[in-house]
Amino acid sequence: MRDNQVNRNSNNQNDDGDNVNASLDKIEGKNAVFEALRSGREINKLWVLNPAEGSHLDSSLAAILSLANDRKIAVMRVPRQSLDRISTTHNHQGVIAAVASHEYVEVSDIINVAKEADHAPLIVILDGLKDAYNLGSLLRISDAAGVDGIIIPKHRSIGLDSLVAKASAGAIEYVPVARVTNIAQTIRDLKDQGFWVCGTDASATTMYDKADYSGSMAIVIGSEGEGMRSLVRESCDFLVSIPMGGHVNSLNAAVAAGIVIFEATKKRKEGEKRN
Amino acid sequence: MRDNQVNRNSNNQNDDGDNVNASLDKIEGKNAVFEALRSGREINKLWVLNPAEGSHLDSSLAAILSLANDRKIAVMRVPRQSLDRISTTHNHQGVIAAVASHEYVEVSDIINVAKEADHAPLIVILDGLKDAYNLGSLLRISDAAGVDGIIIPKHRSIGLDSLVAKASAGAIEYVPVARVTNIAQTIRDLKDQGFWVCGTDASATTMYDKADYSGSMAIVIGSEGEGMRSLVRESCDFLVSIPMGGHVNSLNAAVAAGIVIFEATKKRKEGEKRN
Repeated sequence: MRDNQVNRNSNNQNDDGDNVNASLDKIEGKNAVFEALRSGREINKLWVLNPAEGSHLDSSLAAILSLANDRKIAVMRVPRQSLDRISTTHNHQGVIAAVASHEYVEVSDIINVAKEADHAPLIVILDGLKDAYNLGSLLRISDAAGVDGIIIPKHRSIGLDSLVAKASAGAIEYVPVARVTNIAQTIRDLKDQGFWVCGTDASATTMYDKADYSGSMAIVIGSEGEGMRSLVRESCDFLVSIPMGGHVNSLNAAVAAGIVIFEATKKRKEGEKRN
Repeated sequence: MRDNQVNRNSNNQNDDGDNVNASLDKIEGKNAVFEALRSGREINKLWVLNPAEGSHLDSSLAAILSLANDRKIAVMRVPRQSLDRISTTHNHQGVIAAVASHEYVEVSDIINVAKEADHAPLIVILDGLKDAYNLGSLLRISDAAGVDGIIIPKHRSIGLDSLVAKASAGAIEYVPVARVTNIAQTIRDLKDQGFWVCGTDASATTMYDKADYSGSMAIVIGSEGEGMRSLVRESCDFLVSIPMGGHVNSLNAAVAAGIVIFEATKKRKEGEKRN
């Protein structure tokens, strides 16, 4: 499952004696670190702002330190300059965790977990998102909406790095993500397994609130600016669009995804109630 | 209407002979500049990447230059270093426009425009957004959903600056924004004028898709992390929440706003059809 470990070994030693250049191996900010601790994720150590420099020990930092103590995780008190240097996001809020890299799962893992929980799987496929903030938002949306997992392509896509972890506000700990070589092929495989595949496309004539999202379902979101690639679009069973009433006619990719995914989960719940 | 002109006069001269430190007076990036040109906004000049340095004249830049020519706007060809220095967003895509600062409107202007168009006004109130990306997304959402205007507080809120303009992908040119001193007072004024005011709050027991959004309506979105302030929350007629099925239970402010606003506009359209 771990096939993305290239280029992660070019570490530097700094005067804290720590490897700080492995940008994929840090979680930063109070929410993200708290959720990583709470989820039971393996954490090697915490760097926390020296208390003499923090104005006071706020409640969220206290909760982090308490959890770290329970889990016997080493806490290093360091000055602000050290945190700033270790930080990748430049918004560490006084706490950074050194963690094992995020692991990807297989598509079959996502499907099996849903089936074991005895519900039809709902999967989100992201066809080449480039922006860390958007992938972080999609992880939050997927967690909140009860999506079983996300599929991203190995190439031409942002992966699970520390910026994404920060933007996900901790949701990265709970939403499994699979990486595949060929999204169009993955869509065909899902269809063979009884999935319906819904693409989101501005040119679609079916409005997003008029589609049938019941059963085993995958929703495909295109990349920022360019949308789905044509081969991916053609692989979908049906396409939906969001009606645009304005001049600019463009929503941020994460906002558009949130609108469609929440409509889908709402309709799926209504369908469950009827059955 | 222009009461926010303090601290905008500290300009520096650089070796292009232009004032480049007035960060509120630039629009950057192809989409944003194109929409500013198309909307008829007053533009003082364009800085465009020297053609020798651009790989080719792409279609969007050609469209910008054609519109600038039609409108007799001065175009300065400059090297990449100059653009990088002028840029505030650090993502200028080879084109920056010098513009008059974004003007704010009055709340009454927003209401009057809706009434002249013979529809019940829909207004979005943002109670203290801090993030340029989120305000830009809200402008895109509001443009796409046909919102008549946005109200923000004068204090403790991001305003209309060049980062917001860039994040709005041009929607800033079409969605009027009013700034007020006291959001709670503005809500009371709107209620006196027959508005229903809907707040969004995680603790609300009414689901966002079960509310009545008909008539003159204002939807209040809280700030990132903290939500609506209590005085603002108490001023609302009713509160709605988005059901959260996951572990982290937090959506990005713009994503949550997009879900509620599109549900509201959908229900308003359905209501129009019934009448």
